[in-house]
This record gives sequence, structure tokens and C-alpha cells, in this order.
Amino acid sequence: MFQEVTFSFREINFSVIGQYVDYLVKEQGVKNIFVNGTTGEGLSLSISERRRVAEEWVTKGRNKLDQVVIHVGALSLKESQELAQHAAEIGADGIAVIAPFFLKPWNKDVLINFLKEVAAAAPALPFYYYHIPALTGVKIRAEEVLDGIQEKIPTFQGLKFSDTDLLDFGQCVDQNRQRQFAFLFGVDEQLLSALVMGATGAVGSTYNYLGKKTNQMLEAFERKDFSSALNHQFCIQRFINFVVKLGFGVSQTKAIMTLVSGIPMGPPRLPLQKASREFTDNAEAKLRSLDFLSFNDLKDGNLEACS
Amino acid sequence: MFQEVTFSFREINFSVIGQYVDYLVKEQGVKNIFVNGTTGEGLSLSISERRRVAEEWVTKGRNKLDQVVIHVGALSLKESQELAQHAAEIGADGIAVIAPFFLKPWNKDVLINFLKEVAAAAPALPFYYYHIPALTGVKIRAEEVLDGIQEKIPTFQGLKFSDTDLLDFGQCVDQNRQRQFAFLFGVDEQLLSALVMGATGAVGSTYNYLGKKTNQMLEAFERKDFSSALNHQFCIQRFINFVVKLGFGVSQTKAIMTLVSGIPMGPPRLPLQKASREFTDNAEAKLRSLDFLSFNDLKDGNLEACS
Amino acid sequence: MFQEVTFSFREINFSVIGQYVDYLVKEQGVKNIFVNGTTGEGLSLSISERRRVAEEWVTKGRNKLDQVVIHVGALSLKESQELAQHAAEIGADGIAVIAPFFLKPWNKDVLINFLKEVAAAAPALPFYYYHIPALTGVKIRAEEVLDGIQEKIPTFQGLKFSDTDLLDFGQCVDQNRQRQFAFLFGVDEQLLSALVMGATGAVGSTYNYLGKKTNQMLEAFERKDFSSALNHQFCIQRFINFVVKLGFGVSQTKAIMTLVSGIPMGPPRLPLQKASREFTDNAEAKLRSLDFLSFNDLKDGNLEACS
Amino acid sequence: MFQEVTFSFREINFSVIGQYVDYLVKEQGVKNIFVNGTTGEGLSLSISERRRVAEEWVTKGRNKLDQVVIHVGALSLKESQELAQHAAEIGADGIAVIAPFFLKPWNKDVLINFLKEVAAAAPALPFYYYHIPALTGVKIRAEEVLDGIQEKIPTFQGLKFSDTDLLDFGQCVDQNRQRQFAFLFGVDEQLLSALVMGATGAVGSTYNYLGKKTNQMLEAFERKDFSSALNHQFCIQRFINFVVKLGFGVSQTKAIMTLVSGIPMGPPRLPLQKASREFTDNAEAKLRSLDFLSFNDLKDGNLEACS
Repeated sequence: MFQEVTFSFREINFSVIGQYVDYLVKEQGVKNIFVNGTTGEGLSLSISERRRVAEEWVTKGRNKLDQVVIHVGALSLKESQELAQHAAEIGADGIAVIAPFFLKPWNKDVLINFLKEVAAAAPALPFYYYHIPALTGVKIRAEEVLDGIQEKIPTFQGLKFSDTDLLDFGQCVDQNRQRQFAFLFGVDEQLLSALVMGATGAVGSTYNYLGKKTNQMLEAFERKDFSSALNHQFCIQRFINFVVKLGFGVSQTKAIMTLVSGIPMGPPRLPLQKASREFTDNAEAKLRSLDFLSFNDLKDGNLEACS
Repeated sequence: MFQEVTFSFREINFSVIGQYVDYLVKEQGVKNIFVNGTTGEGLSLSISERRRVAEEWVTKGRNKLDQVVIHVGALSLKESQELAQHAAEIGADGIAVIAPFFLKPWNKDVLINFLKEVAAAAPALPFYYYHIPALTGVKIRAEEVLDGIQEKIPTFQGLKFSDTDLLDFGQCVDQNRQRQFAFLFGVDEQLLSALVMGATGAVGSTYNYLGKKTNQMLEAFERKDFSSALNHQFCIQRFINFVVKLGFGVSQTKAIMTLVSGIPMGPPRLPLQKASREFTDNAEAKLRSLDFLSFNDLKDGNLEACS
Repeated sequence: MFQEVTFSFREINFSVIGQYVDYLVKEQGVKNIFVNGTTGEGLSLSISERRRVAEEWVTKGRNKLDQVVIHVGALSLKESQELAQHAAEIGADGIAVIAPFFLKPWNKDVLINFLKEVAAAAPALPFYYYHIPALTGVKIRAEEVLDGIQEKIPTFQGLKFSDTDLLDFGQCVDQNRQRQFAFLFGVDEQLLSALVMGATGAVGSTYNYLGKKTNQMLEAFERKDFSSALNHQFCIQRFINFVVKLGFGVSQTKAIMTLVSGIPMGPPRLPLQKASREFTDNAEAKLRSLDFLSFNDLKDGNLEACS
Repeated sequence: MFQEVTFSFREINFSVIGQYVDYLVKEQGVKNIFVNGTTGEGLSLSISERRRVAEEWVTKGRNKLDQVVIHVGALSLKESQELAQHAAEIGADGIAVIAPFFLKPWNKDVLINFLKEVAAAAPALPFYYYHIPALTGVKIRAEEVLDGIQEKIPTFQGLKFSDTDLLDFGQCVDQNRQRQFAFLFGVDEQLLSALVMGATGAVGSTYNYLGKKTNQMLEAFERKDFSSALNHQFCIQRFINFVVKLGFGVSQTKAIMTLVSGIPMGPPRLPLQKASREFTDNAEAKLRSLDFLSFNDLKDGNLEACS
């Protein structure tokens, strides 16, 4: 399970990254990190900031994390290539690339050509395609992108699939069974539905604070205890469903993560706005009632039956 | 598993309904029918035609089918009420209603008021809400519609959920566990993902010709043989994925059903257009290669490993 | 300029139609009526109600109105044909048809086939195509629909164009200059932009209460006084811009019309909800400040410079 | 009338910029340039390339062009500020900024805060907001953005409005009449409809090759010869309507501009793909028939009545 790193102060507070690594490993059981993605506001950073953030995670994660994958997608192919090369130089474990989304690729071939040019800048690094059509507006089905991709991109290693179209996802898995691809699902609130379709892992923002709970779900699924797995999934859904109604995005993720971990994640950058106090108060109350706060010492009667 | 009935000749060919019932029961193992829905072009029929079609299915299904649910949704509340009352008179087993979708309900309360007025016209019949936001444009989450619905609609019996948002679907199930609601999933190509989330059944168009295969998947799921269930789901996906790329809708469903069952389903009505010969030929070849044609006597080398 | 008739009581209050006709003619200078369209909630009425409403307008409008066009579009082709035939029988001046929008026509030819079948049921009545892609989801460009339409639909007489794509609208006009088609624009708040593109008229809901003001704009445009025309357009925009921010639709149109005309329009039908008191109060204050209330006897200092 | 500069070779061919300036001034009558916008693939360039392109246009345009406005919008506020400061240093005449569109501003205030921070990096340069909701997905109405904007952004100078909502556009004009803002319309194919609503200018890609024709339309409009203005607009629409059906975007603009000007614009960058030969051939034939090719020496009988 990959964790999307979250934070970006007005000036990035690099000093907390070591603490952040330890928290994820020890408290949430998360040992794979996805850096500079949506949650980490990667596209709101300058290129030099993105390089520095990547370096810090690779350095601080050494001997502690299993994999540090750097998102190097950008609107400019040149900048994406620069970031890919840099990721290789600093010893990252892989790179991921989102489809360019201002001027958009019109068909599968152009999209693959773009991805291929980025991958070629880091020819020894595993390459992941980050499929998130609702944010990019690029509706080319992942299953078509994967068809024959190894001939085009020899380092292709897997897919981060952030969509609810499980026909597309299922066919990615079904048609590539012989290959050792990673099929990482990116819609945290319905991970169980993708596991049953063959997902091999997950990448998401909620694993920052629901990693432990999600690991329990994964373990129940592994041992075929579907009833428990579903109970864990429903617990997670109750929280996400609650915050979705309040307005849930990257800003709110930072606020929740600060709340749960005690590590100051800082405010988001413009064009995002800090989560409101009202949101934070409501989210905290819900976390308490669901027993998701690790420092929750009050096991009182308000807990929902969520264990 | 509900079957959405498919057919509507220029003038409806009522004479094949009996044969259709027998085919579904004997060949596909389908004993629950959803009449006058999307697949049955219910909204393209006149009110008097909708009445007559409903009557025929109830009559011909007697002692053969378990449940015949009539879709009575309409843009006009009055007509919807008339159809609901009629369904009760002819002895249908339930009614289902889609959200009105030209002038749209702006919030949950107005939507429920509309549904309530229809339900009240058939106060003894089980009531199903048919949630299909991509077609109606009504984005009110099903979980919110279900919140407290029994106080408003005492006959509420269940949900046909035709969407891929499994957070919404999961929370419908989770928050109504104590109640005996039916949670019927309507996206056939990813039914397995909803079963693991607590779906209690399915309603869809592909069960006309993939009912048997789907029943095998359901049985595998019941006995916790997830590997087999996934294999069955992937088989189904391969076919649907294939036809989706060719352009797949109600017209194409009719063509495939005619092909598989041998029962003439007739062309669709305007504004639909008959499926092209090219589509039918391609679909037939794919059905053969996947061994989905029951009259397929040639077990030749072209079969995909799909069993 | 066509007026879309607005009203539908729980049971339709036919008794006010005569009064309504007189109001439009005398107070607003409107002599062309579009019956059973979006504003008139035509699709929320039963077929028998639609017939009765049409009859009343034709009867009450005799010798007072120039044209009464009946919208006969429906999801069911049969019902649409029935309504077309009825419109002919009662002596309406034309029929209009919206694209079917649940099951949708996939290309121009199917759409025209549908329209043609309706037109053929009233072979002596002028036929109008009602293009409103944002509501129907049918994105086929009007310019393509009009290409060669007279060979298919000999009674084709014009277009109600309710969209802001003025390339499409302009090309409808440009490519059909030799023909005597009516190009009626349906986005009231920017009518001036369509007049300059060759619009020959307008159909809309705001002409119920802004007909007089709009006629002033039309007259200024006719005499090439563009500065005055723009002033009138801006006045109209100020009001519409104001109510759009409050939430503006068919329900709100009824409330405003009741306010301005003094004729009780009644509440809308489900799935619409009556406009809130707050809306009505705010709208009234704005109408007063813009001097749009004909019974406004207080010419006080709050009037905006809008004349 | 502003011209959006178009070109970006794999490596940018800076050597043609001088020639390009001369062509626009002499052949098309265009003396205002919008650099690094959508057409110029500004967001596909690296930051250092964007700086270099801006420098070249400012240098080569000196004493020839009236205004060179640099688009400095970026997903990263820091990079946008760097570009704004650079534009000031090189002596550009203004800067323009698009709404950030990956992580999106949720309301007017956050959007304005973002714009304000960019504007503050070039406190002496006129500032333009570039409103293009269909590309950015940021639906905040321009009229709301402009409400009180001078208090927030003292250098605010105008709006590039690339949308067809002329209620929004009209209210921008109407509510800011006392101010000397520029209201530049960005939907070339319906410029006339915005002129009548108060547009003070235009920014667009087609002025590269239809600048002369558009100037004729502007002159006709100025002298209140609306019939001629409409004829010119229809001529322009015929061409755009034609290429829109073939698939029209930035790549195709480059191909047409190369064709018309004789200056090699080069292929687009990934994720765009070079326009097909078929497109170019068809576009050329249409340009000829409409007499839009300046080197068109054959005044043969195929010309459409478009003058």
C-alpha cells in the first residue's frame, strides 16, 4: 500500500519529513511512498522544489521504506523528463506520470508517445502510469493504454488507477495476467471492490491516517474473511462519507493528517485554501467516534460499532 | 437476479412473450423480471402500450417466474401514478421508479416527494427506487435518498443502483443493515465488485444472454471461491469490453439477444436505430469464441480460455 | 417574439387562460405563444392534459394572438404523433418538437427520422425543431440538422435555438438564407447577440414579464440604435443575472410572473418545488428597483439607471 | 485585436519571430500580441523556454507592435510569479493569467488571491485575467471575479473572455462601465455577437490568418454597417465551421498558419500531434474557395460568394 505524501508549507518544511517517515512506518504500517502526487500538491510546486522534496524522501526513507516512487508528470514534457532523470540520479525506486491535461492527447498513441519520452529519461527506473480521468479529462481507457505497452515502454511496471470504472480496471488485470505488473487502486473508499477484481495494491491519501485500518482490511481479505474485510471497509467509508459531505479535498487531508499524526502538515498552497476550523472540529469528532484517533484515550460510549 | 426485458417491435409482438419467459427460466436460470425499464424501452412506449406489456409479462410469468417488477417511472407524475395503480391491479410483484429527468428534482426532499406520490398510488406493492444518475442527470446520492425513507414510503423495498460509485452503494448497505432491503446492482460488467460490497442481487440487460454465466459467478461467490468468481467475471467483461468498443446500447442488446436466444426481438423504436450488420457479425464471432452461444456445436480451436 | 406559457396548478386552472392572453397582448405586446414547452411544464403533464391546454390556448387566443405553436415533443414517438395530429385538428398554427432525450438519437439521420415521423402526423402544419442541447444532452449541431431538412420534412418552418453556440446558430442562418425559415433564439438574456447574427425572433420564458422591455430592444435594434438596444439588453441582464444567482428555473418564473401580472400562476408540479418566499421577496425588490413592475407607482430614489 | 502567437518546434525556432512580427503587422494588420497562451503552447514549454520566447517577442516587436502581453499563468504560483517578474524586467506591456486548473480554486476569493499574488510580482504591469472555463474547469463567473477587483489588484486592466456565456460577458461590461477596462473576446467564430455586447477587442488564434478579414468586420461594425459586418462574420464562420468538423485545435492552427503565411510554424509538441496531411489539404482547398489565401492568384469560378 502506497501512501501519498501530504504537505507543502508556504515554504516547505523539510525538517518534518524524517518524523513523517517514522510515523507512517510505525503507526500506520505504510512502507511505500508516492511523492509529489495530487495529495502532495506536486503540480503546485516549482521544479526545483519538486526535486528537493524528492531528495528528502529518498534520503530520509533509506533503510526504512520499501519503495519511494516519485511522480514526475508535468504539462511540459521537458520538465517531466528533467524530473525523471533527477529521480534516477537520487536513487528513487520508480517514477509515475499523469496524462498531460491542459492540451490533451487525443488518442492512445499520442498519450503513449508522451509517456514513452518521459520514461526514456530514466531508462533504469520502473515506470507507472497514473490514470485519473476525472481530474485530467483524458478519457482514454487504461486497458487500451496497457495494450502492448511493454514494447513501447520497456520499464513499464504498473498502473495507478484512480477511477471507479472497474470494467476498465478488471480488463487491465485480465489481459495482463502473464506480466508482473502492479495494479494499484486509487479510490480509497472502495478499495475492497478493486481487490476482488485483482488489484495488487493501493495508492491514496487516506492511508496517511487510515493505513492501519486499511491494513486490517487487506489482511482479512488475504485470509478470505470477507465479512471482516467488509466491516473494515464500511468503517473507512463512514469516515470518508462524512467528510465528503463537508467538502473533502487536499486541504482537508492535510488538516486531518495533522490532527491524527500530531505532525504539522501546514496549510496548502494557493489555489487551495486552508480547511476551515468547522471542518477540522467535525472531522475530529467523527474520528473519535469511529476510534480512529490513536491518542484516543477515552473509550466512552459514543463509539460507533466499528471494529 | 433480475432480467431487464428487451423488445419492442414497431408494433409490439406480444406473441413471443411466453417463449421469452420459458427461455429465461430454462436457458438462463433467470426468474425475476424487470419490465418496461431502459432495456425494454419503457419510456419510448405509450402509456397504453406500457400497460399491455406489463399485463402480458404478469400473465405469462404466472407460476413460472418468481417476481415481475414493473417500472412505472415517467416524466409526468400523473402518468406514473396511473401505471403504478395498474401494476397493482394486474398483480405485479412490485414497482420501480426512476428519478424524473427533464425538469429535475433539486434536492433529496423533492425527489422523495415525487417517489412517495407514485408509491402511494399502489399502497400494497413493494417499491424500488431506480438510481441511474448517468442517464437522468439527477446526482442526489442514493445513500441520502435511503436515509429515513421508510417513514416516507412505507412500501420501500429496495434499490436498483446503476452507477459505479461504490462508496455511495456501500453506505446504502451499511446504513440499512437492520432492514430487509434489496440492494440490486445494475452495472453488469462489474457485478462482482458490488457483491463484495453487500449487493443482494442484480438487475441488468446482459442477463438475457449471460444469465447462466452470471449465475455461475454468483454460485462461486456464495461458496467463497473467489478465484472462480473472478474468472467468470473476467469472461463476462471480455464480451462487454468488446462490444462497448463497437458501440453498445439498447439496440445492440436486442440484436445479441435475438442471436443467442433465437427469439426475434425486433428492431428498436426511434430514436434508436437497429444495430448494424457489422456489429451483429462481430458480436456473434466473439460470442462463439467465448463459448457463450448455447447452440454452439463447434468446439473448435478458436475458443478463448474462458470457463 | 414568442412567449412560453407558464403555469400548471396541481389541477390546471384553465379559467385564467383568457386573462393570460389579454395580459400578454395588452401589457407585454406579445402575440405569439409557445404552448406546452419547458416553461409550461409540458412534459410534466399527462397526454390528455397537454391536449386540453393546447385547446384552451387556441380557443382563447382566436382573433387576439398571431400564432399559437404547440410543443408536441415526447419520449414516445406515438404520443408525439398523437399530439401533433391533435394540434392540427384544433387549428393550431404550428408544432414544435424537442429531440428525444432519454434514449438519445446517435446521429443526425436518426434524429431527423424521429422528427419526420412526428411532422408527418400533421402534414399541413408548420414544423419547428426545438434545439436545447443543455437540457436534452443531444449534441447534434443544429446546422447539421437543417442541412437538407426540407427534403425530409416539407413542413419545416424554423428553429427554436436555445444554446449559446453562435457559430452553430450563425451557420444555420447563413446556409439557409434563401429559405423563409424562422430563426428563433431561446436564450433571453443574450438575445441581442443573436439578433446581430440574424435571428428573426425569440422564444423564451422571460417575455412573460419582460416582453415590453424586450420589444423596446427589438425596436431600437431595428432602427439601428445599437446604443439603446444594448442599454435595454443590459437592463434585462441585470434582472436575470440577479435571479440566476438566487437559483432560477421554471418555478421561479411562475413566481415572478404571478408577481408582475397579478394572475395566479399557481405552484409548479413535482418534481419541481414552489419558489421560496425569500426568492420572491428578493425578486420583487429587484423588479421594483429596475422599474419592471407595471403597477409600480413609487418612482423613488432606489431606481437603477435602467431606461 | 490581439493575436495569439503560434509555434513551438521541438526546439523553438527563434529565428522566425522577426519574420512573424512583420507578417502580422503587414499582411494581417495585427499589432497586439498575446505570447505563451494556449495557441503558443505556453504551458507545454519549460519555464526557461517561456522566458526566452517572451524576450524574443518583446525585442523583435519593438517599434513595430503596439502591445506585447505575456501569459504568465502556471499551476505553480511561484513559477507564475517568476514569469511575471521576468515580463516586467524585459519591458513587456502586460501580463495575463489563467485560473489554475489542476487543483482548482473553489470560490471567487481564492481565485482572486491567486491572481493577486501573481500581479504583485509585477506591480507596474497591466494585468489581464484570462477566463476560459471550458479548458480550466473553473466555472467561477467572470462578472463575480471583476466585482471589486481593483481594490485587490490595482494593476487590473482587463479580461480575456473565452466563453459563449454572453450574460456573464455583458454584465462584466455593464457593471464596469466607468472603468477603463479592456474586454477582449476570445471566441473568434462569434466575435460579432460580443462586439454588440460591448467587447473592446479580441484575442484569438485565427487572427494569425484571418486578421485582415476580421479587421474588415470590425471596421464595418464601427461604421454601423451591420449587414457587411455580418457578411464578414459569416465568411469567417464558414471556414471555422469547416475545420471544426475535421477536428480543429492548436496543431491545426499551426498547419493553417504555415499554409497562409509561408512561415514554417513547425509541428506542435507532445501531447499534441501534427495535423494530418488530409486536414491540411482540405483546409487549403477551403481557404482557396473562400479567397482567404493571399497568394491566391486564381480567381476562378469556385469561389464562394464571400467578400
